[in-house]
Amino acid sequence: MSKQHTEKVRVFALGGVGEIGKNMYVVEVNEDIIVIDAGLMFPDDDMLGVDIVIPDVTYLVENAERVRAIILTHGHEDHIGGLSYVLKQVNVPVYGTKLTLGLVEEKLKEAGIHRDTTLRLIDSNSQIKVGETSVSFFRTSHSIPDCVGVCVETALGPVVHTGDFKFDQTPVDGKHAEVGKMAMIGERGVLCLLSDSTNAERPGTTKSEAEVGQGIQDVFARTTGRLIVTAFASNVHRMQQVIQATVQSKRKLAVVGRSMVRVLTIAADLGYLEVPEGLLIEIDEVKRYKPEQVVILTTGSQGEPMSALTRMARGAHRSITLTHEDTVVIAASAIPGNEKSVSAVIDQLHRLGADVVYGNQSVHASGHGSQEELKLMLNLMRPKYFLPIHGEIRMQHAHRSLATSVGIAENDVYIIEKGEVVEFTQNGARLAGKVPSGHVLIDGLGVGDVGNIVLRDRRLLSKDGILVVVVTLNKKQGIIVSGPNVISRGFVYVRESEELLEQANHLVTSILQKCMAEKKHDWAGLKSSVRDGLSRFLFEKTKRRPMILPIMMEV
Amino acid sequence: MSKQHTEKVRVFALGGVGEIGKNMYVVEVNEDIIVIDAGLMFPDDDMLGVDIVIPDVTYLVENAERVRAIILTHGHEDHIGGLSYVLKQVNVPVYGTKLTLGLVEEKLKEAGIHRDTTLRLIDSNSQIKVGETSVSFFRTSHSIPDCVGVCVETALGPVVHTGDFKFDQTPVDGKHAEVGKMAMIGERGVLCLLSDSTNAERPGTTKSEAEVGQGIQDVFARTTGRLIVTAFASNVHRMQQVIQATVQSKRKLAVVGRSMVRVLTIAADLGYLEVPEGLLIEIDEVKRYKPEQVVILTTGSQGEPMSALTRMARGAHRSITLTHEDTVVIAASAIPGNEKSVSAVIDQLHRLGADVVYGNQSVHASGHGSQEELKLMLNLMRPKYFLPIHGEIRMQHAHRSLATSVGIAENDVYIIEKGEVVEFTQNGARLAGKVPSGHVLIDGLGVGDVGNIVLRDRRLLSKDGILVVVVTLNKKQGIIVSGPNVISRGFVYVRESEELLEQANHLVTSILQKCMAEKKHDWAGLKSSVRDGLSRFLFEKTKRRPMILPIMMEV
Repeated sequence: MSKQHTEKVRVFALGGVGEIGKNMYVVEVNEDIIVIDAGLMFPDDDMLGVDIVIPDVTYLVENAERVRAIILTHGHEDHIGGLSYVLKQVNVPVYGTKLTLGLVEEKLKEAGIHRDTTLRLIDSNSQIKVGETSVSFFRTSHSIPDCVGVCVETALGPVVHTGDFKFDQTPVDGKHAEVGKMAMIGERGVLCLLSDSTNAERPGTTKSEAEVGQGIQDVFARTTGRLIVTAFASNVHRMQQVIQATVQSKRKLAVVGRSMVRVLTIAADLGYLEVPEGLLIEIDEVKRYKPEQVVILTTGSQGEPMSALTRMARGAHRSITLTHEDTVVIAASAIPGNEKSVSAVIDQLHRLGADVVYGNQSVHASGHGSQEELKLMLNLMRPKYFLPIHGEIRMQHAHRSLATSVGIAENDVYIIEKGEVVEFTQNGARLAGKVPSGHVLIDGLGVGDVGNIVLRDRRLLSKDGILVVVVTLNKKQGIIVSGPNVISRGFVYVRESEELLEQANHLVTSILQKCMAEKKHDWAGLKSSVRDGLSRFLFEKTKRRPMILPIMMEV
Repeated sequence: MSKQHTEKVRVFALGGVGEIGKNMYVVEVNEDIIVIDAGLMFPDDDMLGVDIVIPDVTYLVENAERVRAIILTHGHEDHIGGLSYVLKQVNVPVYGTKLTLGLVEEKLKEAGIHRDTTLRLIDSNSQIKVGETSVSFFRTSHSIPDCVGVCVETALGPVVHTGDFKFDQTPVDGKHAEVGKMAMIGERGVLCLLSDSTNAERPGTTKSEAEVGQGIQDVFARTTGRLIVTAFASNVHRMQQVIQATVQSKRKLAVVGRSMVRVLTIAADLGYLEVPEGLLIEIDEVKRYKPEQVVILTTGSQGEPMSALTRMARGAHRSITLTHEDTVVIAASAIPGNEKSVSAVIDQLHRLGADVVYGNQSVHASGHGSQEELKLMLNLMRPKYFLPIHGEIRMQHAHRSLATSVGIAENDVYIIEKGEVVEFTQNGARLAGKVPSGHVLIDGLGVGDVGNIVLRDRRLLSKDGILVVVVTLNKKQGIIVSGPNVISRGFVYVRESEELLEQANHLVTSILQKCMAEKKHDWAGLKSSVRDGLSRFLFEKTKRRPMILPIMMEV
């Protein structure tokens, strides 16, 4: 019996579909489970108090003996940010390119698991064996160097994962995407393609990073004062171009912000960034130079509250004070959801009188391909089946339309949600149930202990605050020994609402006296009577619904 | 002595500058205080639990005897939404056009002050006397009918307020902006122009509403199933075009959503909307028709959580169930800050399999003029001094650049913040101090009682919840009578954190015993010792900072 006859290939996502962030994809070839990427996601607005979100890897834990490896496509946080947490649950070898592993190593050291992790270096020419399965790679262009797509061999044809990509015809580091190799893979009869849907709604072609370099140089050339540039910390190409423009304008460069310094250091050490001798100065040295001699590269392109640029805009940075003589270049776009915080920083910079270059198409380009590039990838790979990934569902849908427009049958395109398994056999493809999947919320040191109940409570508290009612009862005698005392936080301004809180007090007293007179003595009953009565009263008076916490003690 | 010699004109904003929303501008001509607009603003993300924000009108209350009138430029919420609250503090006559007053009347009835308010009807040809000051009007185009700009006569020249405007060359209702009149005002030597900065960053000209009508008809023409259209409830022109397209495609129209129904009713009653007999059906009748016979016009264009469309997308609308046979047209753009909620609804509609038309340039046009139109207004009015208004500060700055590009001296352009007064006399213009100004937060029935302290507490609560510590002490004997009991909400999932909360208990006990042993008996001291000790402990264990509320009672 041929291998094809019994081959079973399953493909699914544990993160990164129906959402942007926490990418984690799984390709199962018979007994081998291969994981591609292990990212994090930043919390939604309603995930109050949560720091980051990672994929639920219950499935991997339950099938740990079959998980062979985690392959990383590139070093962005939404592809490597969850790795430490995952490795603590499922410790398997991690494959990645030099820059990717360089960035990962630092995370693993911070998490204290560096010594227990096996990191295996690959490049776009590597051919590796993972369990019984052969895997190879191909280079792609993206907004960070050293990105690869992944080609997993199966008896039914290769399963290809593009990683994040665009087709940049003038790449800053001269490393072109391996289009020929992609074509050759496509000629072998790709079983299934998983492709980056991020910009599937955007017509045309994404601008080249080289254009941005020119745009930045133009801004530098016409600026006579000090320059402050903000960009995504991980965009090493952008960093290189800022360095180039700084050299061109005969200035010095100071780099501010922990993540920016970290990426620059690792990238330079590993040879991905050329930093001319003597170019960099410390942030404290900036004041020794004239404004026209300085460029400051800083974090804060998303208006993140604690970032360097945001603090500068608030006048709260200990080394840099922005003035009307400064020009701030926002060489980034607002990630969906961050528009308000970015605008707020821009407004604040305007208030300081600084010149702000933003929204300017010449100083930023996306790292993801637009429609023409996505169609090119589809035509190169010519897959039998297609899974649009790395996007919200509307992006996946848009990507499906692109696929049908280049000749892939609509029925052969699967829009998967997290956990939904597509199974391939000799007989074709089908949806084959679901595996466990979901969000794991990380708050402080807690992993996964903030769930629906805690979030629900935080939302309640955030809307109208809390009212704590404390009372000591002697149930036997049916009397109130002390209290009730009503304490509020986040509900009303106490000094102006004394009368209201007094009335609340009286109400609780009468509710309790009534209950005890009726011999209703069980704690649950007393608490819910107080809660219901107070809730009704407060809503009538204020149209607000604070959380009500009755605390009753017995004496 | 000529009137010009002693004329004093002061202009300032109580809302609408350095922000989008709660527009309220003040023009003082000697003893006359004239208020233009009284809007509301929707709360920022950090104004937790707040319903709406209105301007702080302390200045008007303190000078009530000089306040002559409130003039409304048009009926949008950010121009009339605060009126009821303001009139309760300063009751003066309100001037507005027919549609504007029609929308206002309903709000005043809801607030119960309709009978005490004097509403005075004007149109673009009216010339009124407000105190000693003459005021006239001119028609503008915007995304609601019956909009006017305001021309306030002073001995130093007219002060002109544009209201919100664009220059739509093919207005849906045939009512063109009164360009000739604007030019004539400009020829008289405008002292100061206050102009709408909303789209000052956008090059070119804003699309005409008529193009949108064509776009909507195109979508209707190629749609075979049921149509659901969402748009801003106040955009009567858009409503008319949906009605037109519905008639064209021989369908019936059901209107859903309280604000949509309200505006439609008022606009139709007052003659601003033509609704053919028999076109409208009730939402409950929709099921009696075939899908291709129905258009549903609904609220929810901003993904508002309780709106009809959002409930439909969640499968929670009692009358309408969306399916893959439906086409949803989002004839609106996301107001900055609402991008995520709009995307979330679009994604949800995709999940239901509905066809979604969105971001499509043909089904929406802004109501605000872009750069070429703003420059046209500047050239028509040719003001001596210019105050960019109705925008965030970056929009005001962009508008200033437009002004200088058409020949207004940069020093004659004032970027004002709320409360900053520009004073004009025979000697010129100068900044003349500040009047009280700011946000007044409305939460439920409370006006202004939610301030910084309450918001700060809500933010704290939203991040890491609250820990309530209850203990009864006998201070004389220095012992703990009952407790401590530690109760948490929104902090940790209690069932999984029993050990942590037990440790917290023990810690509080030892802190209290130590304090009492050292005879530290004052309540404040005991509470802060508990608070500090617990806070440190919890942060060390969890890296979280819940609010800590120690409640101590004496026996």
